[in-house]
Amino acid sequence: MRLFLSVPFSSKVDSKGIIDKAFKSDIEILIQNLEEDGHKVYCAPAAEKWKISHDNPVKVLSGDLDKIAKTDVYIAILDNEISAGVQISMGFALANQKRIVMASPTGVKLSWANNAVSGFQNVSSLNFSFYDELAEQILELITR
Amino acid sequence: MRLFLSVPFSSKVDSKGIIDKAFKSDIEILIQNLEEDGHKVYCAPAAEKWKISHDNPVKVLSGDLDKIAKTDVYIAILDNEISAGVQISMGFALANQKRIVMASPTGVKLSWANNAVSGFQNVSSLNFSFYDELAEQILELITR
Repeated sequence: MRLFLSVPFSSKVDSKGIIDKAFKSDIEILIQNLEEDGHKVYCAPAAEKWKISHDNPVKVLSGDLDKIAKTDVYIAILDNEISAGVQISMGFALANQKRIVMASPTGVKLSWANNAVSGFQNVSSLNFSFYDELAEQILELITR
Repeated sequence: MRLFLSVPFSSKVDSKGIIDKAFKSDIEILIQNLEEDGHKVYCAPAAEKWKISHDNPVKVLSGDLDKIAKTDVYIAILDNEISAGVQISMGFALANQKRIVMASPTGVKLSWANNAVSGFQNVSSLNFSFYDELAEQILELITR
């Protein structure tokens, strides 16, 4: 299946635009684990080599939205800090009636709107303690 | 025209769920000014009488999204604090190829994703210093 993985980004880079190493590694392992199961994962920051694109943000974002329109499953990682980009893409996925998986680390309290989304018929939500468990949880959800 | 006005909400209520009076008044005047020009404004928190709905969030949110699908213009008020709900609805409006107006108080720095959205062809963005000027700015944009 084609999986679109939406992850927070701006909140994970330092003032020089360098991505948090642990977060990058967590997401890369998650992508690898999903791909080893035969899926094709698109994750924008990974595709952009973990650098914020200042060149043509319109082209970058509309490219991402096109990918969502074509994906089989849309997966959002939701943190305590709300990500503008993740939320926009989730609204876009909702409008495209995609199958949605919302994944948040244990202890994260969903905002009113995200909690509402979690109750939609085409949406599953899951909590995880460690990123290396997350791939398994996602695979169990989408392949059963 | 039908206008959907998306405003931050959770960040504007206190621990008891009571809405900030000044903000409520600003938005109510904005709605009134837009309606006096002959438009029909839907603003979810105003429709919900400025109370957070705990009863059936799925029904409330999907009702809002249905309104966006039918609106002529979608207007988002963007603050420094990212609103999960505003961002979801903006993604939904983008997917529905709506005419979008992004309005932010002077001094607000748009996130990467919101800045990217502001460059889309169907999106206009404006800054305002006072809410009572905002209606005029919006009307100038959408009726010219």
